[in-house]
Order: sequence, then structure tokens, then C-alpha cells
Amino acid sequence: MKFLVLNGVNLNLTGRRERDVYGGESLDGINAELAAFAAAHGHEVDFFQSNLEGEICTAIQKAEGTYDGIILNAGAFSHYSYAIRDAIAAVKVPVAEVHMSNVHAREEFRHVSVLTEVCRGEVLGFGKHSYFLAMESFWL
Amino acid sequence: MKFLVLNGVNLNLTGRRERDVYGGESLDGINAELAAFAAAHGHEVDFFQSNLEGEICTAIQKAEGTYDGIILNAGAFSHYSYAIRDAIAAVKVPVAEVHMSNVHAREEFRHVSVLTEVCRGEVLGFGKHSYFLAMESFWL
Amino acid sequence: MKFLVLNGVNLNLTGRRERDVYGGESLDGINAELAAFAAAHGHEVDFFQSNLEGEICTAIQKAEGTYDGIILNAGAFSHYSYAIRDAIAAVKVPVAEVHMSNVHAREEFRHVSVLTEVCRGEVLGFGKHSYFLAMESFWL
Amino acid sequence: MKFLVLNGVNLNLTGRRERDVYGGESLDGINAELAAFAAAHGHEVDFFQSNLEGEICTAIQKAEGTYDGIILNAGAFSHYSYAIRDAIAAVKVPVAEVHMSNVHAREEFRHVSVLTEVCRGEVLGFGKHSYFLAMESFWL
Amino acid sequence: MKFLVLNGVNLNLTGRRERDVYGGESLDGINAELAAFAAAHGHEVDFFQSNLEGEICTAIQKAEGTYDGIILNAGAFSHYSYAIRDAIAAVKVPVAEVHMSNVHAREEFRHVSVLTEVCRGEVLGFGKHSYFLAMESFWL
Amino acid sequence: MKFLVLNGVNLNLTGRRERDVYGGESLDGINAELAAFAAAHGHEVDFFQSNLEGEICTAIQKAEGTYDGIILNAGAFSHYSYAIRDAIAAVKVPVAEVHMSNVHAREEFRHVSVLTEVCRGEVLGFGKHSYFLAMESFWL
Amino acid sequence: MKFLVLNGVNLNLTGRRERDVYGGESLDGINAELAAFAAAHGHEVDFFQSNLEGEICTAIQKAEGTYDGIILNAGAFSHYSYAIRDAIAAVKVPVAEVHMSNVHAREEFRHVSVLTEVCRGEVLGFGKHSYFLAMESFWL
Amino acid sequence: MKFLVLNGVNLNLTGRRERDVYGGESLDGINAELAAFAAAHGHEVDFFQSNLEGEICTAIQKAEGTYDGIILNAGAFSHYSYAIRDAIAAVKVPVAEVHMSNVHAREEFRHVSVLTEVCRGEVLGFGKHSYFLAMESFWL
Amino acid sequence: MKFLVLNGVNLNLTGRRERDVYGGESLDGINAELAAFAAAHGHEVDFFQSNLEGEICTAIQKAEGTYDGIILNAGAFSHYSYAIRDAIAAVKVPVAEVHMSNVHAREEFRHVSVLTEVCRGEVLGFGKHSYFLAMESFWL
Amino acid sequence: MKFLVLNGVNLNLTGRRERDVYGGESLDGINAELAAFAAAHGHEVDFFQSNLEGEICTAIQKAEGTYDGIILNAGAFSHYSYAIRDAIAAVKVPVAEVHMSNVHAREEFRHVSVLTEVCRGEVLGFGKHSYFLAMESFWL
Amino acid sequence: MKFLVLNGVNLNLTGRRERDVYGGESLDGINAELAAFAAAHGHEVDFFQSNLEGEICTAIQKAEGTYDGIILNAGAFSHYSYAIRDAIAAVKVPVAEVHMSNVHAREEFRHVSVLTEVCRGEVLGFGKHSYFLAMESFWL
Amino acid sequence: MKFLVLNGVNLNLTGRRERDVYGGESLDGINAELAAFAAAHGHEVDFFQSNLEGEICTAIQKAEGTYDGIILNAGAFSHYSYAIRDAIAAVKVPVAEVHMSNVHAREEFRHVSVLTEVCRGEVLGFGKHSYFLAMESFWL
Repeated sequence: MKFLVLNGVNLNLTGRRERDVYGGESLDGINAELAAFAAAHGHEVDFFQSNLEGEICTAIQKAEGTYDGIILNAGAFSHYSYAIRDAIAAVKVPVAEVHMSNVHAREEFRHVSVLTEVCRGEVLGFGKHSYFLAMESFWL
Repeated sequence: MKFLVLNGVNLNLTGRRERDVYGGESLDGINAELAAFAAAHGHEVDFFQSNLEGEICTAIQKAEGTYDGIILNAGAFSHYSYAIRDAIAAVKVPVAEVHMSNVHAREEFRHVSVLTEVCRGEVLGFGKHSYFLAMESFWL
Repeated sequence: MKFLVLNGVNLNLTGRRERDVYGGESLDGINAELAAFAAAHGHEVDFFQSNLEGEICTAIQKAEGTYDGIILNAGAFSHYSYAIRDAIAAVKVPVAEVHMSNVHAREEFRHVSVLTEVCRGEVLGFGKHSYFLAMESFWL
Repeated sequence: MKFLVLNGVNLNLTGRRERDVYGGESLDGINAELAAFAAAHGHEVDFFQSNLEGEICTAIQKAEGTYDGIILNAGAFSHYSYAIRDAIAAVKVPVAEVHMSNVHAREEFRHVSVLTEVCRGEVLGFGKHSYFLAMESFWL
Repeated sequence: MKFLVLNGVNLNLTGRRERDVYGGESLDGINAELAAFAAAHGHEVDFFQSNLEGEICTAIQKAEGTYDGIILNAGAFSHYSYAIRDAIAAVKVPVAEVHMSNVHAREEFRHVSVLTEVCRGEVLGFGKHSYFLAMESFWL
Repeated sequence: MKFLVLNGVNLNLTGRRERDVYGGESLDGINAELAAFAAAHGHEVDFFQSNLEGEICTAIQKAEGTYDGIILNAGAFSHYSYAIRDAIAAVKVPVAEVHMSNVHAREEFRHVSVLTEVCRGEVLGFGKHSYFLAMESFWL
Repeated sequence: MKFLVLNGVNLNLTGRRERDVYGGESLDGINAELAAFAAAHGHEVDFFQSNLEGEICTAIQKAEGTYDGIILNAGAFSHYSYAIRDAIAAVKVPVAEVHMSNVHAREEFRHVSVLTEVCRGEVLGFGKHSYFLAMESFWL
Repeated sequence: MKFLVLNGVNLNLTGRRERDVYGGESLDGINAELAAFAAAHGHEVDFFQSNLEGEICTAIQKAEGTYDGIILNAGAFSHYSYAIRDAIAAVKVPVAEVHMSNVHAREEFRHVSVLTEVCRGEVLGFGKHSYFLAMESFWL
Repeated sequence: MKFLVLNGVNLNLTGRRERDVYGGESLDGINAELAAFAAAHGHEVDFFQSNLEGEICTAIQKAEGTYDGIILNAGAFSHYSYAIRDAIAAVKVPVAEVHMSNVHAREEFRHVSVLTEVCRGEVLGFGKHSYFLAMESFWL
Repeated sequence: MKFLVLNGVNLNLTGRRERDVYGGESLDGINAELAAFAAAHGHEVDFFQSNLEGEICTAIQKAEGTYDGIILNAGAFSHYSYAIRDAIAAVKVPVAEVHMSNVHAREEFRHVSVLTEVCRGEVLGFGKHSYFLAMESFWL
Repeated sequence: MKFLVLNGVNLNLTGRRERDVYGGESLDGINAELAAFAAAHGHEVDFFQSNLEGEICTAIQKAEGTYDGIILNAGAFSHYSYAIRDAIAAVKVPVAEVHMSNVHAREEFRHVSVLTEVCRGEVLGFGKHSYFLAMESFWL
Repeated sequence: MKFLVLNGVNLNLTGRRERDVYGGESLDGINAELAAFAAAHGHEVDFFQSNLEGEICTAIQKAEGTYDGIILNAGAFSHYSYAIRDAIAAVKVPVAEVHMSNVHAREEFRHVSVLTEVCRGEVLGFGKHSYFLAMESFWL
């Protein structure tokens, strides 16, 4: 199988930003581990990050026909981007939603994700391990 | 008269996405028909689509002085983009809002458009014909 | 095709009432133009107006078997008449909802129509032209 | 005892309208069965249906002194007619509210009846049998 | 001056209905006193009552050109009839809203009148005297 | 047919508790009458009451295969027990919801039952007779 | 009879403040007319105005035993002063609430008066005449 | 490490209840697989299911000192049991919340879990695999 | 007099759980002090704690005829258990509600107790002393 | 220790106002008993009452350095005075909030006290005894 | 120009109260600096502080004709005093609203100021510098 | 010090758009004045404007290490962009929020800024001077 790990706004700061929440490892570091993890299970993985909501939509649109699953951490977009929601609903590639932090233990606005309804499932609160568990969901 | 048909996020998927809702014709196909329809009535029409909210704003800003009317289907942006709303309010070009589907018969979040208040009018629910009716509103 | 143009409460005042909102033409004048427009396209059209919610319901009930479509401007009833909504849902004749003014740019209570969900589509904000566009939606 | 079976807006369509919800029997058919049922228990029953909210109010007002109980299915009026509510509260005749469908398993607006508070009781969800049970409540 | 005293739904029951709230005098009795009161001040007055919302609208529409003021007790319609509100807004005859009871000391739904915003003023809570005070407001 | 009459929390106090609301007859007394009523119509009936929400769930779970219908008065659980709701939705035995009092004429929190949506129907407000009518609904 | 005309915060500015809303006459001028009006009907009247909520409460407390009625325009305090509300409820002197402007046609926060529930009645929207009508309500 | 897999109300019906949502495998079957999975990774696991909210609380209270982690699917209790929430907050054993279905794609009341805020993380939507991923989160 | 000190869910953890909120003394320790306090004033006291909502209801039901007052700390049940509320309302034994912590200075959901309305009074925020003050309220 | 018993708006009417709610004893009478109670336990107490919100704030501000605790019944101010709340938060003197009546069993607006969050604790519903229990909380 | 620096409730405690929020400088100290700042720019400034809402209103009323601008920190009154709002709206002197703390980063009730709508502008979050910036706004 | 003046969506239209709200000066004109103002105080300033939310986020991310403060007018993004909020929270550069208009005196949706909570402070309503005051806040 081939996966797309898709990270939204401000996730390029991972490792630099609020370390008590997101840990001290950089996004590149996490991605490298995810690539190794996928390879160890015989799968391929590509990575894309953008601070532009529309580029996340385009990436999801283009995933169809190329990827068997998307591991998506949309960051703050999760809480209001009906555009990303519509992109997910428009394609047939299944999406597993990921949050590193326990969004339900933070500010009120983070308690709602407008994306989850159209995703296959969600993993949240396990730090970088949320990505691994979400990826693994595709081959269990 | 000269019109701009402006399509927002995910509308580039028209014809591929949820066909029972949006029909099976591509956006290019619809645009070609719209161009013919405009020409038949002695008008010109340009087309622009973007998945980036900010590019939609810029297109609206630049419409002033060039176009006599905008036919706008902002897609999911309709439900939360106060940026697009402000762009419409800032220019003098009249805007006719369009939705192919009957947004009031779908999910709750689609029942509100933050754009309508600053548009001239709205046509919704008639599939691709919504565009034709909205365009026609400018010369009736 | 044969259409019913159905107008609800206070629309008999059109042309006399708030002219800046509704224009200065009387309902009879608009209806005459609509009849001509329908005839020009080879269609027939009947007209009915009532200030009584129940008579609007009865008119919708009786439309089945006689009309191919209803062009409905329910006036203030649009905002609370679940009775008219049920009448529309109960018949198979498709209904196109019409508002002359841009109801979303007026008082808060006018922003919700309880009818739209069960109509085929909606045209609003184009003055008397809203009726023409809604009628045309049936033969496009 | 003498009863009034009072049906509100659109219930004249019973048997024709949404058959999966309301069954295929006509209102006249149900009324005939109700008359037989009342007679079998030694009671009399009259019937009235109207699409006009005000006529339902008047029928309730006039019931005092003539009927021992009203079996009322106000249809869509149930959800907003404070006029009917006031009529019920103003008379001493007890009212049993009836709905054929399980209104709580349908659209949100049907979950609230503004009438129930001033009725003696309510029977809902048992199709035409709701009427029989409500009538029987008067002599149990 | 010439006035129209307009009473809405269930007010024909005044004197019979909840006497502790509305007093024991009939509507005809109150109207006779109002006629005498108007005459004593050199004015004329007509009376109309209906349980039909649409007839109240029509009466308001027709008041223009005939009456100098309307004294309106819309009863339960006050709380939801945007149709009556639109009728008031559509005519130039000033309207003084009346309630016999203190609606703010009763059920929650009676705390809001959708009519007041488009009336000149409101008198409530003084029993039948509310009508006299509202009428007097026109010549003070 | 075989029925289960299932009573929830505090209903063991019937006849002792707020007699003006629930009447003076004990639950055992009512149950004995229900048994006689069922027998008179050729049916069997079992009874279960518990103050423990989980035991009500278990009783509903076990009803499948044994009973043809459940007559359920869940008492205060009706207003918040999504656990009981899920139990009802999980089994194929139809459930008729019962309330002795008119819950819509009491405190605000009693106006909502989270159970009704997944029940076949509901009977409320007729005192102990609510049980009889609900039971009868199964053989009408 | 003896009355207290009680004016709350900012009403000392009457005649100076927003003249299109409150008219150009000063509070002293209005009070003089009210005194004459009362005298002409054989009654006495005292006047008190304060910008201090607590002094309004004290004035109401002390009214008992001295006045037969209070004509109260609490100004902005009307919309949030539960202290004044409690003072009214604590005394037996009846209170007629007054607003010069039609508060329901102004900002949202003016649509609610927390005082009305414990007043005998309310007169609003008739400019300075609101005071005269409210006073007259005591001897009608 | 030693884990407790804790299942709440109605989860004993897994495999029998709404199979399209929860799959056709029984809870015992899933538990057996989970035991094997834990053993394969060198861990131990115990299982407990109850329909009684209070027993779930007691099980969580007793977990301290015995288990290194709890995998909790509280079923419908997730949506309102502040009791279970307090039990989780009171112990030091970390809890991973699990839902087999995508609760955000079902009824509104399932969109909120009052437990998540005090859990370490949450896995939802992957059917029985949600349990495996949640368990694995403890040793990643 | 004879009292029942009734503790709800998770209060068996007192002294172990969140010590900064609840103090370090065990429930048994507090109960022993309460028994001594009662005895010193010539009263008797019994104690009951349960994690099961239904057992709390049953204990309240059975208190009638045995106890002169109940000192109730329902823990998290306070915030949603209409079952316990109904049990309190159903018996004649007066209930004094107790919270050790200042629930209004904690999470939003703790700001509402559905029980207080049917209790005689409430003492909160004084740690274990809340129990002593509540007990003393019965003999002051 | 030295205490300040601080009473807000309208509490000077205690004994005269709504006696069924507040009892028939005057505030001076209660204060005399409180002084005796304090003295009997070796403490001093001062008293202050005002109908002016700002004077209550000033009294709290000045309490610092003089009093060991404040027993505060703010009356209606409790429900909206963020000014008093800020005064309490600004000083280090602990405050025990008191209500004679069970405010949760009265009007909706009395269910919220904006003060409790910044007080040490609260005693309500025990009539004049609420003051005694609140005072005693300081030396338990 | 001549300015009035107007401080509301509890601001007399500045320097003593919550120093981490408001800094350690006294109001007199800040005022002295403001006077020097104004003088340095060739302006005059007066100061007034009160804990009484009504005195703030009176100060605003009297400012007309004397001052060219008001720098207003109403403290907690900002969040509910429609009286102060009306005073501001009633005078022609422009008002610049000031908060030392970032009220949007504190409790929910501080997020709304009912005054801002009728002020010229607002400066918040810069500690004592908020006053200087607000004053400077008048001569920029 | 070195500052970044950051302008969001549609602010490139300043001087062209709604001049009564934003003034007639262009953004370039204002920026030139700001550069001169900064220079006059010995500071440097850079400028960036974008209609793309993501580019605003990136600019904020990159500000760290380069700028001592950001003066941010996010335009319509202020009201919903949690992405920009997260970017501000993720960097250590302090941000002063700016609005030229008094957003609290305009449409409801402009009354909330989701950014303010994570900014140092806010200046609004003083036209182009809002930028100068916000910049000055960094060196006061």
C-alpha cells in the first residue's frame, strides 16, 4: 500500500512550537520514522505539509488513484475548514484523522473537528505515536 | 456586458465528485455551455476557479473595472469565509451567488451562507442551470 | 407545461408596499408579464394569491395532477409555516421558491425559510425577475 | 359521551401523502372506523378537518357544551400554533393529542408540540391506532 | 379621527375565558364602552375580530385611507405572526399594540411579540383599560 | 403475545409518591390490573422494576426472543439515559413508551425523552391508563 | 390618590439627549405637565430622579404607605437591574412601567425589561405621553 | 505491562447488535484476539464488562496498583457519565478511550464524550481494531 | 434526631483522590468525626456510600420513617441524576446538599446541580466542614 | 477573630418583605443574634448594609486588614454584579456567601451567582440560619 | 485640549490588587504620570474615580462642554452597565475605552464590553500604557 | 527595535474600499507614514500584506529571530482564523492587534476576534492611527 501523510498549518513548526504539547522532535524527524515504519511493513509513504488550506484540498483531490490512504493532521484547519471536509468527502481515498495532543483537554474551539464525520476514524492524544497508530489502521 | 464566472474550492471536481448531487458534467463542460449561452445573448464571459480562498478574494478585487457582474459559486467557502464576503462588499461589481445543490436540504452547516447578505441575489438547487439563471439575472 | 404562480400573504400589496424593496409594479402587472413570458415559451400559467395560510396549503394540494410546477412566493409565511412545508412535501409537483428581495440582507427572522428544504430550488433578490428565473428553471 | 375528532392541516391528504409514514388508508376511512368503534362502546362522534388554523380554533371554542372530549391531530400546526394552544386552554373540554407518526423520530421541528402542555395527554406513533387509543382514554 | 379596534384569535371568548386573567366582561361589552369613550372625545370607531390570521392581515391592509389609527390586540398571533407584522409595516396607519394581561408575567412564549417593533407603541397589563389608554394615545 | 412491563427508577413508589401526579394506586395494584387486562385479551405479561439503569438495559437486552413487546416507563431515566436508548435500539422487540403524568406540563427537563426516537410510539398523561393503552397498541 | 413619578439613570438628560428619540422637552417640563394633569384629576404627585440604582431601590422601598402608585421609567436599569425588580416585588405599591421610546424597535438589549414581570402593566413608545397614560391607568 | 480492557453498557451485545456499525464478531471473540495480541507483545490483559455505570467506576478505582493502563469503551455512558469521568480523574492509571464506530458520523448526542478530557488519548472508528491500536499506544 | 449521611460515586476515594481539592482525610475518618459530632449534640447518625446511582435512590426512598434528615453529597451524580432528584422529591425527609469543594470554581459542568431545587438547602466549599454545617442546619 | 456581616440591596426589608421566603424577623434582629453567637464563641462582628452596589464594593475593599472573614448576602446583586466579584477577588479576606432562601428553587435568574467562584464557600436555603452556619465555617 | 481620565469600580485598588495583572503602581502614580504626559503635549487633564456606577454616569453627563475627550476604564462595569453606555451615547464628548489587562485572555465574562459600540475606539492589554495610548489618540 | 507591520485580506484595498469606514489613504501611504514614525523613534519596520491566510501564518512563523514585535491587522481573518491564532501562539514575538474601524460598532460577526487572546494587546477604532498607537506600545 501507498500512503500520504498530510500535515496542515503550523505543523512545520513541530519540535519548535509549544514543546510540552507537541514534543521536541521536528516534523522531518517524525516523517523519517514514519517512512521507516511503513517500509518495515512493506508499504510506501509520501509526505506533504502546507500552511495553505487550498493546497491541502488540492493534495487530497490528487490523492485519488495514487494513494491507498491518507494520514491527515490538519492542525487548526480541523476546527473550521469545510473546504477540507468537502475535499475528503469528494474522494474515495480513506482518511485517518490524527492529532498529537488531546484536543479535548485544550481550548473549547479545539473540541470540535469539522473533518471527523467524513474520515474513516481518528487517533488523538498520543503525541507522534498518533501518526503511527493511524497509519497502522490501514493494514490491521 | 462582460461577466466573470468564479468557482471556489473543490468545484474543479464537478462531474467527478458526488454525482448524484452535482451531476456528471465537468466544470469545463459547464463553462463551455455558459460561454455559448453568454455569446448567444451578446455577452462575454471569463472563468476562474481556485481552491485558495485568498485567490478568490483577489479575483473579486480585480473584477472592478473589467466585469459588469460576477456569477459566484464559492463552494464550502460560502459557509465561513468572511474574507470573501469583505471582498464582495469592497467592490462595486454586483455578485449573483450560485449553488448547484439545494444547500438547505443538506447538512446543517450548509444552511448558512455568510456571503448572501452582500450579494445582489442567489440561485440555488437547479444543478448546472443555477449558473445560467444567475447569469441571465444581469440582463433581465 | 402548465405552471401555478402562487403568492402568499401581503403580496397583493406589491407595488403599493415598501417600493424601495419590492418595486413599484403591481402583482397583476407582474403576473401579466409572467403569462406573456410563459406563452412566449409555449407554456400555460395560472395565478393564485391569498392572505390565508390554509388556502395556500389547499392550492398546493390541488396542484397535483394539474400543474407541472409551482412558482411560490409565500411571503412572511416562508419563515414559520410548517403547514405549507408539509403541503409541499406531500405533493409530487416540484416547487421553485421565490423572493423578490434579498431576504438575507434584511431582518434576522427573514434569513430562515422553513420551506426551502422541501423545494427543488430557490431564487431570491432579483426583484420581479426572481419569478421569471424560477419559472424558467422548469424548462431549462 | 360525545366526541369530536378534529384534524388539522394536510390531514385531508391521509392515504395519499407519504404512505410509508401515514399508511394508505384515507381520512374518511379512518373516521368511519372511529365512528364504528365509538358506537360499539356506546358513544357518539363527530368529525371536522380544516387547513385553516383559525377554523380549528373556532371548532375548539364551539366544542364546549357539546362534546365530552376532543381527539386532536393538529398536523403541522402542533409545532407553532399558540392560537390553537390558547383555544384549548380557554375551554373546559379535555383534549387528547394524537400523532399517527412517531414525531420524535422525524425532523427536529416535529419534536416540539406547543399544544401538549394544555392537553390531558398524548398518543403518538401507532398510525391510525393512535386515534383509537386516544378516544378510548376518555372512557377507561 | 376614526379608529379600528382589531382583535385576533380567541378574543371573542373574552369574558368567558380565564376570567382571572381577562376579566368577566365580554368583548362586545368592552367594545360598546370603547365606542362611547371615542364618541365622548369626538371620534369614531369600528370593530373587527377574527380567528383567522389572514383576515387580520387583510383588515390591516384595508385600513389605509379609512382609519387614522388601529388599536390591535392580536392575541396569540402576537407571538409568531410575521404575516401580521408585515401587514402593519406595509401600511401607513399607525398601530398601538394592546394586551389585557401582563404577558411578561405569564408563559415564556408570551414574552416576545413579533409585532411591537413595527407598532408605534404598546400598552399591556391594565385589563380592558389597556384598550382605552391605547386609543387615547392617538389624540394626546 | 407475551409482554414485558418495565418500570424504571422510583416507580416502585407509585401510590406513595406525589399522589396528585401519579394517583394513589400502588405499582403492584396497577400491575395486577394489567395482568388481568392482558389475560382477558388472551395475552401474557411479565413485570420488572428497578432503580438501577443498568438492570433496565439488561432486561431490555434479554427481552429479545421472549417477549413480543415492551411497555416501558423509564421514569427519570427517560430524560438522560442514552444507555437505555441504545439497549432499545439494539433489540428487535418493539417498545411502547409510557408516562403516567403529562410530562410536557411539568418541569422543563421532563419535556425531552431521549428514548422516544427509538420506540415505536408513546402514550402519556392518562395516569395508570397510559399503561393499558400502550399495551393495547400491540394488538390493535 | 398620590403618585410617585420615578425616573432612573440618564433621564435627567431628557430634552438634551437624542432628541429624535426622546423629544426636546426637559424632564422638569414633563414633570410640570404631569403635576398639572394629576391635579386636574384631583390627585397629587411627587417626583424623583437618580442616576444611582440603589437610590431608585430605596425610593421604591419608602413609597409604601405614602403613595398609591408608582410611574417608573428606570431607563437603562430596566434591562439588568434585578435589584430594582426585587424592590418592586417587595412592596405592595403597584408600579406602572414606562418607556418614552419604542424599546422593541431599538438595540437588542433594550428588548428585555427584567422589571415588567413584577409591574402591574407597561406603556411604551408614545414619547412623553407614555407617562400620562401610565398615570391614568391608576384611576381608570 | 498489564492492561484492563473495560467495556460499558450494551457492549456485551457486540456481534448481535447493529452489525453494520459494530461488526459481526462477539465481544468474547474480540477479547480473545486482544489477549493473544497482548501476549504476543509480552503483556497481560484482563477483561471486564458491565451495564452498570457504578461498576465501571469501581473497576477504574480498583485498577490503581494493578494495571499499567486501561483500554475503555464506555459505550453510551461516554456521553453523559461524569461519574466515570471523575473515576478516571481520580486514579493515576492512564486511560485510552475507544469507540468502534465513528461516533462523529452518527447522532448528535454521540459527538460529545465527557470522558476524553481526562483520558490520555482516543481511538475511534476502526471497528474492533480501535481496541488494538489503543492498547498498542501504551508500549509505542 | 437521627440522620443519614449519604455519599455518592467516587466519594469512597476521599483522602486518596485529588487531595488538594478534597483534603487528605478518608471518608471513614470524616464519618467517625461526624458520628462524634452528632452524639455530642444528642443525635444519631448512619452512613451509606455507593457508586451506584440506583442504590442512592433506594437509600433515599427507605429513609422515610427512619431518619429526620439526610446529609447528601451525591458527587458527580449531582450534575445529571434526575433519578436522585426524583427520589428526593418523592420522600418527605428533608435533604441538605453538601459539596466539599467550591464546585462553582471548578469545571463548567460542576456549576449546575440538578438536585438543589428539591433540597432544603446547600453547603459547599468548606471541605469536610461542609458536612458538619449541613448536619447542624437540622437542629439550629 | 473579627467578622463583617455584609448585606446588599433590599435586605434592609428583611422581616417586612415576602415573609414566606425570608421569615418575619428583621435584619436588626438577626444581626443582634449573630453578634451574640459570635460573642459566645469569643469573636467580634460588625454589620453593614447598603442598597448601593458601589458601597458594598468599598466595604469589601476596606475589610482588608480589619476583618478575618466576611459573611456576604449580596441579595439581587449576586446575580449580575461583576463589580462586587472583582472586589472580593481583589482582597485577601475570605468571603462566605449566604442566601436565606433556596435560590435554586426560585426564578431562573437566581440560579446563577456571579460571586461564588471567588468566595471560599456558600450556604443557602436555611433562612436566617444560613448566616450562622457561614460564620461558623470560619472557626471550624 | 482638556481631558477627563475616568476610572470605575475597584480601580482605586490599582497597585494593591492582583499585581501580576495590573502592575504594582498605584492609580495616583499613574495619574501623575498621565498629567505630566498631557502637560508635555500642551494639554490639561482631570481625574475622577468612583465605585458607584451612577457617579460614573453623572461624570460623563457633566463632561460635555468641559472636556474634549474622556479616557474611560470602567472596570467591571464595562461588562454589564448599559447605564454607562447610555451616558456615553447621550453626550457628544468622544470616549476612548481603556483596559490595562488583555480582557480577552481572562474569564469569559470579560470578553464582552457593552460600552465599546458607543466609544470612538479601544486600547487594551498594555498595562498602564493603555491610558497613554488612548489619550494620545485624541491628538494624533 | 525592528517591527513587522502585517496586513491581512482585503487591506490592500485600503483607501479604495468603504472610505467612510477606512479613510481615503492607501495602505502604501499609511505604511510610508509608519516607516517615518518608526525611524523618527530610532526603529526599523518592514511591511507585508497578503490575501492568503497561510501566507500570514508563514510570515508570523518567520518573524521569530528577526522582529521585536508584530503590528497585525488580520482583516476578516481575525474573526475565524484559528490558523493565524496558532501561529501567533507558536512564536515568541509579541503581537499587537490592530483594527482601523470600531469593529464592535459594525456587524455581529466582527465583534469577536479569535486572535486577541494570544496577542499582547489590541488597539481599535482610531483609523490609521490605530497602527501608530500599536507600534508605540512596544517602546513605551
